[in-house]
Amino acid sequence: MRDVIELTKDLISKASVTPEDAGCQLLMQDILAPLGFNNETMVFEDTTNLWARKGDTKPVFCFAGHTDVVPTGPVEKWQFDPFIPTEKDGFLFGRGTADMKSSLAAMLCATERFVKDYPDHKGSIAFLVTSDEEGPFINGTTRVIDTLEARNEKIDYCIVGEPSSTKTTGDIIKNGRRGSITGELTVKGVQGHVAYPHLVKNPIHLFAPALAELSGTVWDEGNAFFPPTSFQVSNINAGTGATNVVPGEIHVNFNFRFSTELTAEEIKSRVTAILDKHGLDYSINWILSGNPFITEAGSLVDACKASISQIMGFETELSTAGGTSDGRFIAPTGAQVIELGPENGTIHKVDECVNIANVKALEKIYYQVLVNLLA
Amino acid sequence: MRDVIELTKDLISKASVTPEDAGCQLLMQDILAPLGFNNETMVFEDTTNLWARKGDTKPVFCFAGHTDVVPTGPVEKWQFDPFIPTEKDGFLFGRGTADMKSSLAAMLCATERFVKDYPDHKGSIAFLVTSDEEGPFINGTTRVIDTLEARNEKIDYCIVGEPSSTKTTGDIIKNGRRGSITGELTVKGVQGHVAYPHLVKNPIHLFAPALAELSGTVWDEGNAFFPPTSFQVSNINAGTGATNVVPGEIHVNFNFRFSTELTAEEIKSRVTAILDKHGLDYSINWILSGNPFITEAGSLVDACKASISQIMGFETELSTAGGTSDGRFIAPTGAQVIELGPENGTIHKVDECVNIANVKALEKIYYQVLVNLLA
Repeated sequence: MRDVIELTKDLISKASVTPEDAGCQLLMQDILAPLGFNNETMVFEDTTNLWARKGDTKPVFCFAGHTDVVPTGPVEKWQFDPFIPTEKDGFLFGRGTADMKSSLAAMLCATERFVKDYPDHKGSIAFLVTSDEEGPFINGTTRVIDTLEARNEKIDYCIVGEPSSTKTTGDIIKNGRRGSITGELTVKGVQGHVAYPHLVKNPIHLFAPALAELSGTVWDEGNAFFPPTSFQVSNINAGTGATNVVPGEIHVNFNFRFSTELTAEEIKSRVTAILDKHGLDYSINWILSGNPFITEAGSLVDACKASISQIMGFETELSTAGGTSDGRFIAPTGAQVIELGPENGTIHKVDECVNIANVKALEKIYYQVLVNLLA
Repeated sequence: MRDVIELTKDLISKASVTPEDAGCQLLMQDILAPLGFNNETMVFEDTTNLWARKGDTKPVFCFAGHTDVVPTGPVEKWQFDPFIPTEKDGFLFGRGTADMKSSLAAMLCATERFVKDYPDHKGSIAFLVTSDEEGPFINGTTRVIDTLEARNEKIDYCIVGEPSSTKTTGDIIKNGRRGSITGELTVKGVQGHVAYPHLVKNPIHLFAPALAELSGTVWDEGNAFFPPTSFQVSNINAGTGATNVVPGEIHVNFNFRFSTELTAEEIKSRVTAILDKHGLDYSINWILSGNPFITEAGSLVDACKASISQIMGFETELSTAGGTSDGRFIAPTGAQVIELGPENGTIHKVDECVNIANVKALEKIYYQVLVNLLA
């Protein structure tokens, strides 16, 4: 059978920095086609996507992921060339080893083995792969999903191969993610000289009580799956640099990571209510990065938990913490979505690496999930 | 007698941008020496100062001012070359016409006439002139005063020729100035990713309630001579630019313009009490630009009021509004200090100018003050 580490190395060797795919998806297609997959390449603008499906019945099980990697950062700080995969002391080093080419390799090897072991399996198996998950994510998974939705093609179960694990593979799986919305706020005042306070309206002073209220607000209490919604101001800037001039505007950027207890519209409404209550003259630009989603108990969660227990010998933990992922685009279609992948301690850093033994375990976990759901 | 407008033009022709004197003080010395003045040039670093005194008895009446001018700004926006004094429609244009070479000329002409009219006048007449009032004011009036104090030479009455007037010469005289103190504040937190709020301490959030309290505080009610003390934040900056990072620090610049109801030490103490009450981890750097001073009723105020009433036919108004002046260095020695000079509508702007008739009136006002105090 195909070796998951060799396949990971083949993928690492292709320097697919966002939005480049660098031939990774062609390599995947070459493996999937002989297994009976129908490969459909969807190019949107600068982004290459692959929708590969074997079978035409339900349920549709999908492996989702991305071939793009983040930039290397300073190459001289790496122990090894980031695009020459190198083994050392049981670890495989290279950009994308953890995020997420070892996942892609494990998915492919598990699928190859499963299809050979269970040629008459139930339902369908699919791969949804993009070359723009690390970038602006405009022309990637979201547009593939739009295409599938337009032809009423539905995913029932989806494993996203993002590095969900912390200490060892499978210790944590993500069964949802918080939403993320950013606000770009400008509060207006009237500029002038500090010596003539009756002629100015200091926007910093005007905004201060609203900022205190926004910072002190409990937005929700979270729920069984989510921590409480958090509000963070990331940037605040006002002033001309001169110490004797009151500025005319203050600029504030803030971000909400929000639970399923709130919607983006509710957040907008509550923020503007506070700004209005303080009588501010302001403008605000909202950027919704993703709504929260949650996959509660169900066949997919059960299959993953059982598989991890069987292969790794421990009970996994469900979590919704951390940043966003492409799962946010897939979940709204009604699919059950889980993120399950390698340890994330080195992702986006120099000397990104994976534990070789754990990648082999991940292949087995994926295989066992397929068995649990489709055998 | 010497013509005040011609003398103003001679001074304007000398391009004495801070800290350059460009020969203005030598011209002044050439006028004062024949009148019996002892001229003492005091050069400190890049700054030229003149202490000229006639007589060795008390009371000591002093004209104070500066020969330096602010930069012209864009010359092409001026109607005339800013260093070629030009008359038009009853106004004299040029950099420094209002701030404050016409005052210097009026002081010199008034003194020349007074000394000739009253050769046996009481007390002493002095000139304290610097070439760094518009700049960092480190080596100007403050160091001359230090020198005089060291030898126990005291000024009793001082007219600073700053452009105190608004609509017409003498309509407002300044009998004091607010103090000015600036704080450079850094509040510390703990930097981190917005997605992990439990790992960060957002300094913007931590500071918000203190900012609201500082902005909302009534520091004093002012008094008969001063408006209430005002607090203004001029600059506030925090953030890495990235929208997903909570910054580790926030930097805040603020300024107090304060009345004689407060001292700089009281302000520091009240600000730090508020910061401490909110449990902040901060550092603060204070810059005291000047303490407030006030010249209440007395011989100098009476002499100025009477003189303006006699020459201009209206009652002047006492004010402590506006920015700082070198009077803050002179008043602490115990001198009575008044600012009385031309209209300030065009100072520091392009097309700076003075009303020629009003400069002639100013010379008469200064002359009459000398008569009222020393004849």
